[in-house]
Amino acid sequence: MSHTRVYNFAAGPSVLPLSVLERAGAELTNYRNSGMSVMEMSHRSKMFMDIFQETKDKLRRLMNIPQDYHILFLQTGASGQFSAIPLNLISRTGKADYAVTGNFSNLACQEAKKYGQISLACDTSSRNHSCIPRQTDLKRDPEAGYFYYCANNTIYGTEWDYIPETGAVPLVCDMSSNILSMPVDVSKFGLIYAGAQKNMAPAGLTVVILKDGLAGCELPLTPLMMNYKIMIEKDSMYNTPPCWCIYMLGLMLDWVAEHGGTEGMEKLKWQRANMLYDLLDSSRLFTCHAEPGSRSGMNVTFRTGDETLDAKFVQQAEEAGLVNLKGHRKTGGMRASIYNAMPLEGVEKLCDFIRAFDKENG
Amino acid sequence: MSHTRVYNFAAGPSVLPLSVLERAGAELTNYRNSGMSVMEMSHRSKMFMDIFQETKDKLRRLMNIPQDYHILFLQTGASGQFSAIPLNLISRTGKADYAVTGNFSNLACQEAKKYGQISLACDTSSRNHSCIPRQTDLKRDPEAGYFYYCANNTIYGTEWDYIPETGAVPLVCDMSSNILSMPVDVSKFGLIYAGAQKNMAPAGLTVVILKDGLAGCELPLTPLMMNYKIMIEKDSMYNTPPCWCIYMLGLMLDWVAEHGGTEGMEKLKWQRANMLYDLLDSSRLFTCHAEPGSRSGMNVTFRTGDETLDAKFVQQAEEAGLVNLKGHRKTGGMRASIYNAMPLEGVEKLCDFIRAFDKENG
Repeated sequence: MSHTRVYNFAAGPSVLPLSVLERAGAELTNYRNSGMSVMEMSHRSKMFMDIFQETKDKLRRLMNIPQDYHILFLQTGASGQFSAIPLNLISRTGKADYAVTGNFSNLACQEAKKYGQISLACDTSSRNHSCIPRQTDLKRDPEAGYFYYCANNTIYGTEWDYIPETGAVPLVCDMSSNILSMPVDVSKFGLIYAGAQKNMAPAGLTVVILKDGLAGCELPLTPLMMNYKIMIEKDSMYNTPPCWCIYMLGLMLDWVAEHGGTEGMEKLKWQRANMLYDLLDSSRLFTCHAEPGSRSGMNVTFRTGDETLDAKFVQQAEEAGLVNLKGHRKTGGMRASIYNAMPLEGVEKLCDFIRAFDKENG
Repeated sequence: MSHTRVYNFAAGPSVLPLSVLERAGAELTNYRNSGMSVMEMSHRSKMFMDIFQETKDKLRRLMNIPQDYHILFLQTGASGQFSAIPLNLISRTGKADYAVTGNFSNLACQEAKKYGQISLACDTSSRNHSCIPRQTDLKRDPEAGYFYYCANNTIYGTEWDYIPETGAVPLVCDMSSNILSMPVDVSKFGLIYAGAQKNMAPAGLTVVILKDGLAGCELPLTPLMMNYKIMIEKDSMYNTPPCWCIYMLGLMLDWVAEHGGTEGMEKLKWQRANMLYDLLDSSRLFTCHAEPGSRSGMNVTFRTGDETLDAKFVQQAEEAGLVNLKGHRKTGGMRASIYNAMPLEGVEKLCDFIRAFDKENG
């Protein structure tokens, strides 16, 4: 069926490798002679517990997650963590620092204000979030319970190219849109989390990587499903976890490993992204939203400056099998989300299309 | 592949119809010529929005849900609702009544105590939850903000055969293990919810059916993903919903419709259950956990009274392709979960096995 597939540049949920989908399809009604689908398995069965544990192990291996970090498989996406993080961590000092560099860090910041005293470490909204602040620009409170930032801003197409230095203050990072796209020194973080539906798996799974010792000081009203301590104690199985997404994550992690691990992903990431940025910078028609030095390797945001022409671009691209290139309404223009599973060929095809469009309309 | 499939009596996640799985498999890499899997679709795309809306419409039709009820597609299972319900509803009066007839209603009750003043409408724990109270046995507070009960107790194998009368107090019901197994007069409820992984879809989706006007008085610290008002305003898409599970629910609802709707399901339910209860009651070896008049049509709990013999039963059944019959540790013995998707043939095979086992060991 591969010849009928499109190149899907959606910001999430997004493209999965065809080989991963085909593997899932091959064992859909009968997983490894169990006589049932993974979708039908008791989460407490040995067969599923093996899938669960192997998936955790694979993630630990691929991301080189130290043994004193817990891996949790939760639900409700990044927005669930917007609440869970302050509910679990803010009582350490009652305060937290938030770096606002886009839509989702702003939403996280607003939600956190329900639970404690929040300071802005930075706010790039006056430049429509087209840039990432430098370390020296960050206002930090040494008494903050944690420092929060979002490593890649899906809507604006910016990405932090460094890990903020926060001293003894635990670093909390939303990696929803760039997890597994590069090696990361997990030991520098207190908590890393990611909604799975961009770089890892289908929608419905949130991965939380949490340093041991940070849980256990949750606010008294914390809902049990948002209580990290309970989730650690129950190994993410206080109740039924999102089994199918966990299984799909396992298949995706195999695929990442087969393609060079996080080092391989990082190489591919900048091959894809630089191919686009170089072309856009040298084009007559297009400008990029993100400033050089702050540009994302996952979401490339660009526009012609003419809304009608932008719309024409999106429509003609779709007719050419290059779909979901419309930018978010907060930036307008176009956005090419080029996550791990986007083949280089898809970006080459997009570059061909941009070149032709530029020539015809520039 | 059907000849290699087993009969899966798991309590949840549980069996799905083979035809539903095969349909999902057939369009796994390319849904209706979209060139992509449902797992890859943007939740805001027209293609997925159609799936989403059609699934809601199908559920409304099948359950005859009045127009003044909202249908929400949420996450984190019943346990998430254990918190969300008091967070959203208890401030109406600060109090609520809980009918404790099993494990999950007890957990819901314990969680609710964090948020308000909880009274026990009943507690069947002294009889190891083998029975359901009658209407006249329920202690009710006319000033309760709501009355909570669990319609079917998966672990103990009991099921309410009536809808409690609560006057003006909104009725809240956990239907996780018997939703869609019979026609229900939704207009008698304030809120019905169900984790999908028993009777409806793979794990990772929670359906909430909520009467208009009940949302909007949430406690100030309610996490945004647990705020019914926000979820109603955003039509369950504050962020990315569990798309694949919603799609699978749609396929399952088609299957229910093709098999006579909820009336058809109710007929099948008691055909399956009575076949088992009649046989067990007339056997030499077996006794049922649930008392007559309180017995579940979804989970049949039984035992020999001899743990070694029970273990032998479970093991030999598994060798015969009848799997996941081990009872929960709180009841011991065996449990046959016979949800909508369990074919009659599976129950017939189980009855044959019980008959032979009774003859050989009785």
